Amino acid sequence: MTGTLDIFSVKPLDVVIMAAGKGTRMKSKLPKVLHQLAGRALLQHVVDTAAELQARQVTVITGHGAIEVEAALAVNTGATSQFDLNFVRQEPQLGTGHAVQQAVPVLRDDGVVVVLSGDVPLTQADTLQQLIAACAGTKLALLTIDFADPNGYGRIVREGDTVKAIVEQKDATPEQRRITEVYSGIMAVPAVLLKQWLTRLDNQNAQGEYYLTDIVKFAVADGLPVVAHKIADAVQVAGVNSPVQLAELERAYQKRIALQLMEQGVRLADPARLDVRGSLQCGQDVSIDVNCVFEGQVSLGEGARVGANCVIRDAVIGAGAVIHPFTHIEGGKPGGKDAVEVGAGALIGPFARLRPGAKLGAEVHIGNFVEVKNSTLAKGAKANHLAYLGDATVGERVNYGAGSITANYDGAYKHRTVIEADVHIGSNCVLVAPVTIGAGGTVGGGSTVTKDTAPLALTVARARQISIANWKRPQKAK
Amino acid sequence: MTGTLDIFSVKPLDVVIMAAGKGTRMKSKLPKVLHQLAGRALLQHVVDTAAELQARQVTVITGHGAIEVEAALAVNTGATSQFDLNFVRQEPQLGTGHAVQQAVPVLRDDGVVVVLSGDVPLTQADTLQQLIAACAGTKLALLTIDFADPNGYGRIVREGDTVKAIVEQKDATPEQRRITEVYSGIMAVPAVLLKQWLTRLDNQNAQGEYYLTDIVKFAVADGLPVVAHKIADAVQVAGVNSPVQLAELERAYQKRIALQLMEQGVRLADPARLDVRGSLQCGQDVSIDVNCVFEGQVSLGEGARVGANCVIRDAVIGAGAVIHPFTHIEGGKPGGKDAVEVGAGALIGPFARLRPGAKLGAEVHIGNFVEVKNSTLAKGAKANHLAYLGDATVGERVNYGAGSITANYDGAYKHRTVIEADVHIGSNCVLVAPVTIGAGGTVGGGSTVTKDTAPLALTVARARQISIANWKRPQKAK
Amino acid sequence: MTGTLDIFSVKPLDVVIMAAGKGTRMKSKLPKVLHQLAGRALLQHVVDTAAELQARQVTVITGHGAIEVEAALAVNTGATSQFDLNFVRQEPQLGTGHAVQQAVPVLRDDGVVVVLSGDVPLTQADTLQQLIAACAGTKLALLTIDFADPNGYGRIVREGDTVKAIVEQKDATPEQRRITEVYSGIMAVPAVLLKQWLTRLDNQNAQGEYYLTDIVKFAVADGLPVVAHKIADAVQVAGVNSPVQLAELERAYQKRIALQLMEQGVRLADPARLDVRGSLQCGQDVSIDVNCVFEGQVSLGEGARVGANCVIRDAVIGAGAVIHPFTHIEGGKPGGKDAVEVGAGALIGPFARLRPGAKLGAEVHIGNFVEVKNSTLAKGAKANHLAYLGDATVGERVNYGAGSITANYDGAYKHRTVIEADVHIGSNCVLVAPVTIGAGGTVGGGSTVTKDTAPLALTVARARQISIANWKRPQKAK
Repeated sequence: MTGTLDIFSVKPLDVVIMAAGKGTRMKSKLPKVLHQLAGRALLQHVVDTAAELQARQVTVITGHGAIEVEAALAVNTGATSQFDLNFVRQEPQLGTGHAVQQAVPVLRDDGVVVVLSGDVPLTQADTLQQLIAACAGTKLALLTIDFADPNGYGRIVREGDTVKAIVEQKDATPEQRRITEVYSGIMAVPAVLLKQWLTRLDNQNAQGEYYLTDIVKFAVADGLPVVAHKIADAVQVAGVNSPVQLAELERAYQKRIALQLMEQGVRLADPARLDVRGSLQCGQDVSIDVNCVFEGQVSLGEGARVGANCVIRDAVIGAGAVIHPFTHIEGGKPGGKDAVEVGAGALIGPFARLRPGAKLGAEVHIGNFVEVKNSTLAKGAKANHLAYLGDATVGERVNYGAGSITANYDGAYKHRTVIEADVHIGSNCVLVAPVTIGAGGTVGGGSTVTKDTAPLALTVARARQISIANWKRPQKAK
Repeated sequence: MTGTLDIFSVKPLDVVIMAAGKGTRMKSKLPKVLHQLAGRALLQHVVDTAAELQARQVTVITGHGAIEVEAALAVNTGATSQFDLNFVRQEPQLGTGHAVQQAVPVLRDDGVVVVLSGDVPLTQADTLQQLIAACAGTKLALLTIDFADPNGYGRIVREGDTVKAIVEQKDATPEQRRITEVYSGIMAVPAVLLKQWLTRLDNQNAQGEYYLTDIVKFAVADGLPVVAHKIADAVQVAGVNSPVQLAELERAYQKRIALQLMEQGVRLADPARLDVRGSLQCGQDVSIDVNCVFEGQVSLGEGARVGANCVIRDAVIGAGAVIHPFTHIEGGKPGGKDAVEVGAGALIGPFARLRPGAKLGAEVHIGNFVEVKNSTLAKGAKANHLAYLGDATVGERVNYGAGSITANYDGAYKHRTVIEADVHIGSNCVLVAPVTIGAGGTVGGGSTVTKDTAPLALTVARARQISIANWKRPQKAK
Repeated sequence: MTGTLDIFSVKPLDVVIMAAGKGTRMKSKLPKVLHQLAGRALLQHVVDTAAELQARQVTVITGHGAIEVEAALAVNTGATSQFDLNFVRQEPQLGTGHAVQQAVPVLRDDGVVVVLSGDVPLTQADTLQQLIAACAGTKLALLTIDFADPNGYGRIVREGDTVKAIVEQKDATPEQRRITEVYSGIMAVPAVLLKQWLTRLDNQNAQGEYYLTDIVKFAVADGLPVVAHKIADAVQVAGVNSPVQLAELERAYQKRIALQLMEQGVRLADPARLDVRGSLQCGQDVSIDVNCVFEGQVSLGEGARVGANCVIRDAVIGAGAVIHPFTHIEGGKPGGKDAVEVGAGALIGPFARLRPGAKLGAEVHIGNFVEVKNSTLAKGAKANHLAYLGDATVGERVNYGAGSITANYDGAYKHRTVIEADVHIGSNCVLVAPVTIGAGGTVGGGSTVTKDTAPLALTVARARQISIANWKRPQKAK
């Protein structure tokens, strides 16, 4: 059979991901592989790595919480994925070999199969590329690692470059127990070989399980080469079995991201206090202060500065914009109507909140205790203090007074407020939508405006000021 | 004398806590043992550990700042404590042996005495249980630890399991200096033996002090067994002598708490950025984002999520509630009228503040820049933007408009605002308490309401909107 | 020549700082030495260290971005500096020796020259004092350090206390490569010797550069003593070549500051989560909670407490003041009209913002979602909820209602609001400046006040409350 393989040909890559386990130690109702690391399910990380590798096919073996797992994954891949996504169920769960056996019907003979685990999220694509290269379309290639304390792991018994066996802890001789190279659980193997070997598995062991690692024996028995690709970075093969391990990998991931950003030139006040849960694109000379969280897809233009303690999701921040501390931005899908956009040179915060559909032009100022939702502000517009702009269209250079509110909701429908260019809205006004304030107009402080106003007009809705002399305020009874 | 002891009987536990030291290196006016770690005084941690051990009697030896120390402790124990709390004064302070001598008059003969230090806050109860077990009601049992660098500590000289001496650094032979097992300052000893040995202490040493450790000599001389219970965790015997050490133990404590929470299934985005100063009870599938602080007694219901940068004190958060970033909750005594309650499925924040007596029903929404104090909101009520609710009773499904305020204070008294079910309050309203807005009613934006309104009525208090055409706003002089 | 030197005389100190490098790995438009560490340019740190050493003269060798570098430095030193500041240009950059050669025309013969690097910010003044002492006005003194991994660094070849050579990595014998003592790039040398040796440099090497380290050869050849002052703290000689290194030194600096503060008695909830970018002066018994940032010049009075997540710039906080979490303070130049002052016993926050010129008297309360700018509040004044005070003068015991706004801007000019003592401003008021509310007066909730009011008067500007019975709110169409 091996005679038919051409070691120089590039075989299609088919990925099998084991995702059937229960994850009891997570102490959660959520299936283990759906727990989130950096804003994505553990399993999604593995699937995304498969996509990076340009896999032809990804087969996910589900079991515990299968319906939930399959649904979650379907949402996140669907139409956009470049690969065929298959789910196969493993019920009951009778071991790793049994798991991969379930995938046999969907595996094509011409591929190389890489077996991954849905709870090992941080294996990097280039590591797997190297493993696939070691497999070379013909060999069984194992991803291995040296552990200072290999206790409990299957040891790699080598003769030079060739692997002779994986020996489990309990079967290991004293000498073998001193081996520090262990199997990671990840392998690359030609599909035809894998399929044939899977048929030879048995469960004659203490656990009564079918072990995938037994195929090493068959390969050796068949005289087929078994090789190891050894890596140094334990994070890449670390699995998540508990909230403690999840937190450890979360921090390892964040450290990796922080390093990547700094290597691109981003200045981070404290790399240990950055959380990126999604993608963060940065132009030149971007700086990010301590304790910021980025979620979804965020981009920061050249020279943008993000102050301490900001939380930013799905937003496009323009060049030179300054996001002051304690700013909360929560946009919608990038490119869509709900995405938040902040123009070049804009000043936002502190204590500002931008919600879905906030579209701020260049040099817009949004100050403290100001909320903007589903509103467009043209260049140079300002809302600096304690204000709400919802469902509003705001023209250039508008000054929107402190404490002013667009009353956009009548209890049933949302309506639009239009504030044309150069308008000056006083303090503590209410603009009852639908309403238009004509260009260049002024609204006096404390006015509730319910009707459209003409351009350049001064509008007030205000009672006369009266005073009662020598008024006695209530006094506390003695 | 020892013949009268029954090693199989469980003797009552009496705890002696040395708390007379000045703590000069703290550079503080506050007595050292009153410095706070995780929201409790150092000494309180030790007393609480004694309570966990079900001590019969706790005797605190005070000296520097005795009045303050005794007052602080009395407040926190008082009626609820299960043990007799005694204070004895050590004035002047003539050493550890002298300190414990002061306690002799209150120590009963039938007990085992555990000697603790008020500045060693993190000794765990089970460690002390094991020490007490080693004491077995008859022996002098020392808590010891191996230090990689034992310099300056009293070395434990053993013959097998038996301790022959504690040798101080300056008296140690070169061989003894190589001993890494040192005395922690904590011991368990039968009261009758302790009392007798204390009478034999002298202060014939360089410092002119009475050393408690000298009793080891007497025990050996008397042919009585001295044993050591050695632990591995240095945090448990670490004392606080400076702000640096205080901060180190604070972080060690927080790390311990974070680990406990994760082991219960709580998901922490960053275990190194969690501060719990009190008790935090969590249901299943609770997640806590980075940089949160919990104080007092907080419980988080099943599936509750706490966003980044929240500060929460004394609150009961319901199942599935979402606390968005930058939320500040400050309740009062749990169970009391000031405790904060957040109902199931409620959405709070970002930038929300809940103050004492905020009682929020299920699915209540409290949005950005909203403050709630001493107010009850029934199921489904919403106050989403820039608002103040103080001393208010808010019915089901009420929509409380942006910028609206309950004017609850007349300069002398606080008054109550009642907003009945299904009311819709417009934007920037003022509800001047005492006032009731009848069920199903509407208040127009910008209204100041001073009189009760009928159910289903629309109420406005609004001046007519007038405009002046072609109004010239002030211009900056050239 | 050396015969003319008196080793017992103290020679004037002249500092030369190499600051011509490009810093390609910073991936920034900003010249490397202008990147900020703890709020100051890297080069500024070095210049400030020179000032601490009471240098007579500081000569900065600029090259890449020379105009920007010189401008930045001139701003920060100028009239206040105690030393003569010279800039010399190195164009092109032909090595460290070439760099220092540019300084020769401005170096005076009677001095000791210390050569520093503008990208090595954290060398401490006392380290350099010791180096200068080692130089003793006569010797070439090198600052050295042991590196566990000295690879790539110039090794210090010694005979006893005397340095025989600095051997570059590529020229080192296997035995020399095992030397762990390396040259830091910092030296102290008598000016007359330095100048003479600089004339003897050549660029006959692989890089074609003039190396300053070659002067060691000349010294040895001339029979003049070369000594090393070896330090242990790698941070002091660490250079910044990349954002990663910048972040590492930032954290090292912050750790150093946190330690200093704790040693003074300041209690830090987490020393790893403190950022001080400027100077922070603390009285006794100050405590600072997690994740605070201090910028500019901040002082905290005795017993002041700063809550979690505060950002404070240029402010004087009085004794016993409490700054609650999420407070943002941004003052101006200390001592100037824009500096923020917070009086003794004041309570600020949470979610408060104090802007330039906020001057708060004793026991002032500023609560949540309140912004204060360029305003003076006398003792006991309160603005507790959702309010804006800009350009206001507020008397003692004033109660400024929730949601109230000083309308200080007419679109062209800012005007002043005066609220005299004991005034009670209701909720959601607008005070249209310029306006004065007379002492003891009351303004009813929801009023817009445009005219001055008399002392003790009750002022309202309010429409009559009317109701329409059985009003139908808009309903969502089915």
